[in-house]
Amino acid sequence: MQVMDKAAAGPHSTANVYYAHLTPLAFLERSAYVYPDKPAIVYGDRKITYAQMQERCRRVASALRANGLQTGDRVAIISPNVVPMAEMHFAVPMAGGVLVAINIRLSADEIAYILEHSGAKFLFVDTEFNHLTKPGQVEHIVNLLDDRSFPKLDGYPTYKDFYTSGSPEEQPDWLESEYDTISINYTSGTTGRPKGVMYHHRGAYLNALGENITSHIESDAVYLWTLPMFHCNGWCYTWSIPAAGGTSVCLRKFDPEQAWNLIEKENVSNMCGAPTVLIAMANHPRAKEVKLKRPLTITTAGAPPSPTILGQMEALGIRVEHVYGLTETYGPHTVCQWQDAWSDLSPDERARQRARQGVSYVIANARTRVVDEDMNDVPADGETMGEVVMRGNNVMKGYYDNPEATATAFRGGWFHSGDLAVMHPDGYIELRDRAKDIIISGGENISTIEVEQVVVKHPAVMECAVIGVPDDYWGEVPKAFVVLKPGAAATADDIVAFCRDNMAHFKAPKYVEIGELPKTSTGKIQKFVLRDKEWAGREKRIN
Amino acid sequence: MQVMDKAAAGPHSTANVYYAHLTPLAFLERSAYVYPDKPAIVYGDRKITYAQMQERCRRVASALRANGLQTGDRVAIISPNVVPMAEMHFAVPMAGGVLVAINIRLSADEIAYILEHSGAKFLFVDTEFNHLTKPGQVEHIVNLLDDRSFPKLDGYPTYKDFYTSGSPEEQPDWLESEYDTISINYTSGTTGRPKGVMYHHRGAYLNALGENITSHIESDAVYLWTLPMFHCNGWCYTWSIPAAGGTSVCLRKFDPEQAWNLIEKENVSNMCGAPTVLIAMANHPRAKEVKLKRPLTITTAGAPPSPTILGQMEALGIRVEHVYGLTETYGPHTVCQWQDAWSDLSPDERARQRARQGVSYVIANARTRVVDEDMNDVPADGETMGEVVMRGNNVMKGYYDNPEATATAFRGGWFHSGDLAVMHPDGYIELRDRAKDIIISGGENISTIEVEQVVVKHPAVMECAVIGVPDDYWGEVPKAFVVLKPGAAATADDIVAFCRDNMAHFKAPKYVEIGELPKTSTGKIQKFVLRDKEWAGREKRIN
Repeated sequence: MQVMDKAAAGPHSTANVYYAHLTPLAFLERSAYVYPDKPAIVYGDRKITYAQMQERCRRVASALRANGLQTGDRVAIISPNVVPMAEMHFAVPMAGGVLVAINIRLSADEIAYILEHSGAKFLFVDTEFNHLTKPGQVEHIVNLLDDRSFPKLDGYPTYKDFYTSGSPEEQPDWLESEYDTISINYTSGTTGRPKGVMYHHRGAYLNALGENITSHIESDAVYLWTLPMFHCNGWCYTWSIPAAGGTSVCLRKFDPEQAWNLIEKENVSNMCGAPTVLIAMANHPRAKEVKLKRPLTITTAGAPPSPTILGQMEALGIRVEHVYGLTETYGPHTVCQWQDAWSDLSPDERARQRARQGVSYVIANARTRVVDEDMNDVPADGETMGEVVMRGNNVMKGYYDNPEATATAFRGGWFHSGDLAVMHPDGYIELRDRAKDIIISGGENISTIEVEQVVVKHPAVMECAVIGVPDDYWGEVPKAFVVLKPGAAATADDIVAFCRDNMAHFKAPKYVEIGELPKTSTGKIQKFVLRDKEWAGREKRIN
Repeated sequence: MQVMDKAAAGPHSTANVYYAHLTPLAFLERSAYVYPDKPAIVYGDRKITYAQMQERCRRVASALRANGLQTGDRVAIISPNVVPMAEMHFAVPMAGGVLVAINIRLSADEIAYILEHSGAKFLFVDTEFNHLTKPGQVEHIVNLLDDRSFPKLDGYPTYKDFYTSGSPEEQPDWLESEYDTISINYTSGTTGRPKGVMYHHRGAYLNALGENITSHIESDAVYLWTLPMFHCNGWCYTWSIPAAGGTSVCLRKFDPEQAWNLIEKENVSNMCGAPTVLIAMANHPRAKEVKLKRPLTITTAGAPPSPTILGQMEALGIRVEHVYGLTETYGPHTVCQWQDAWSDLSPDERARQRARQGVSYVIANARTRVVDEDMNDVPADGETMGEVVMRGNNVMKGYYDNPEATATAFRGGWFHSGDLAVMHPDGYIELRDRAKDIIISGGENISTIEVEQVVVKHPAVMECAVIGVPDDYWGEVPKAFVVLKPGAAATADDIVAFCRDNMAHFKAPKYVEIGELPKTSTGKIQKFVLRDKEWAGREKRIN
């Protein structure tokens, strides 16, 4: 049986009657055709219709080619969630380029490494982040002038200069295969140098449809961009919203008050965020004031949401979809798929079910497994820990220019997540820890997530992170870092006692420290920062 | 760039980490995993859960292989919408076979042709339709014993015998490529012999997702099977409902009263039907009695719904999605995609917008065009007629064992529908006629659809069909065949006068005949039956 490939078949061959590349480019093409006058992007008072977005993307694509971009060349962007960032997700692949969207919280050194490793020929940089780049570092630099309080880099065109120079006409189809790379997303690289995760057009297309299925996104969706687009291409929602013909509401920086205001003003139906984003929103005074005019779905990932925050969201009338994945899986890969029988559970018990990571997306076409070191499935008993491994249509092509790391990650024919989980009898996975986060205390494995979920049940606790700290007798013991709710009071001893009342004593935190938590730009708690401090001067356990 | 193919890569190669065939088989696999205890199929008092459906399909697949089926062999089925019919859509491809679901209204001769042309090695036949087959016609025959009032074919196993003999274990993966043929659907063949339209796994997978997007189908969907599954594999809903994890409600025969009763009893969310089905349901007394407990979406195709019936459905609180396609396009290929601005129109004007056939599905990844004989697009003026041509992921692979017909249908690199339409300025197509139905009167083209839409505005008219009849002066003139609403009265002259008041006189029917309309099993009006009668003894125009 033949496998279709445009390169082999020629653009007007009979074979192509029943073949079209699976590429997100088709989403913008269709929405510009079907919804030319509908807002594709809303940003403050600006509205960009689908016809305008298409024209602007064509112009950027045309200007990229005119400035020497060749098929497969990398185009880097350092930008918050503003209009050009949304557009570049189409403009770059439209030109046959590969998008490298870089985390704005990285240091200049880290960014220099990514620019060099990716071999980016173009760099689009929001002027707020100019200080992270050096003139001449990349052949072509373009200034994104969103906030004029930041000075532009002299001698380089602005985004407007750039797209104005391009042609508004339909661009040539540069795609040779649906497995062509569409983007490279660099991992955060807590161990060693960041690795460049390659997505292909087919995977991006399918995962985008997967997001729409999971998050109930249809053509009337209004999506609030609280999630950074540089994070797994915004979990593929940069492509999925145009797939549905919905509207993207951009914002420069996440702030719970502004998020609530935009939800009200723009009639938002969907947003995404790590559980910390949910916590910030649930605990903001506006949470009680805003009247939702339509159902709001928040899709959460990045860390397991505690049953506590799931319960709070339910009480606010917000539908939470809990998904899980990694940069290597186009963002979300599994979803805690709702079961009707959960309606009959108590809110607590229901939240416990929903805090699990669940099952593969339908578009993955493969089961998520939890395996031991020999790649055997662990018993589905909800207790035995193993590593989460995935495969299927939403797993990366590999690490860019790093065959060794790719081979390691893909050993045994599965992608190794490095996350530890249990498999429940119903086939749902539940994360216990990152392999590097698990606490080994007196020979017992303690899941930091399990401990955290007990700590946040304490009525005064808003958020917490648990790590293992050195102990001469046990090797390691759990320590909890706790943020209290505004106006709430509790002592470290109160919380230790609460935990000992509510879980096995060997798992309960021996120490509690009250204060703030270090976080990444995407709202993930940086446990390694806490660990570095606690283990300073001692030899850390290597997993 | 490489194109993945399991045959080339081997089942455990690294390449397969990020590749899984797009096949509907993955849908059942996932739903049996995620929703083992949820009803996949409801039929009368029977409920088949997803776990049971999977086991039964595995058993049938295993028994097919044990009885000599080899990859690519054809398996025919003649059956109404009962349990085995739904299951065979998975069991046959699971065994590596190709499903040939045959229209139960065909004659024994037509069926004999299809069995012979397809070279079917197996035939599964519902005992009601035994008289359409001959013992020994096919190597293996299996009796579907749904209604025991029909005698079985002696000497052949029943479906239960057959699946009981098979293994409940997971079956080997026989698929070599996602372009392997999953089914062959024979056209109705009003001109010449029926042609076997080949669907591949990838197209079936993508069109199934397209149906769910178009019809708002999620995991809580309850789908009522009024549409025959032998018609384009039930427009791919046989695969799309398991893709969502929804429930299929089977029924042996469409009847508006039973449909209303099942909608109420099973809490139905979705069904499909030709406009005649909508008309039958809207005009049934139960329409006014049934209280919908949840939103009901009816997806309609097969003929353009008149603005009148769209208005009636709206009044009943039913959401109608109007789609259009052919056997060659996996059923629906375009959808009259809703535009927010239509909310502000009068019900009449809105219904006129919604009676158009619209734009390609998102998964087609290609625009539907209306072209002249030289394949140039006709002006998008809503007036100039041309032929509808399509391409993309939901266009057939070709006609089975008929390269000439395939080449003709695919000339110029597009599938030629044989349907005449106009292109509106907003990019939506609107059908005017089948090429063979158009009336040419005194050199003017008259769209029979346009005439019909005026006739059904008459308050006494329930349904109508217009054809051209011989006229010595004009060549042809329009004649309307009309069904009146129950209890309504109107004369042929009344209706002629009404039409002359409401449209150009040359388009108004010169004759009206009141009575019943000949229909196919799928509810399509058989205009050729009317034409054969009217043109008896005269030379018919050949288009």
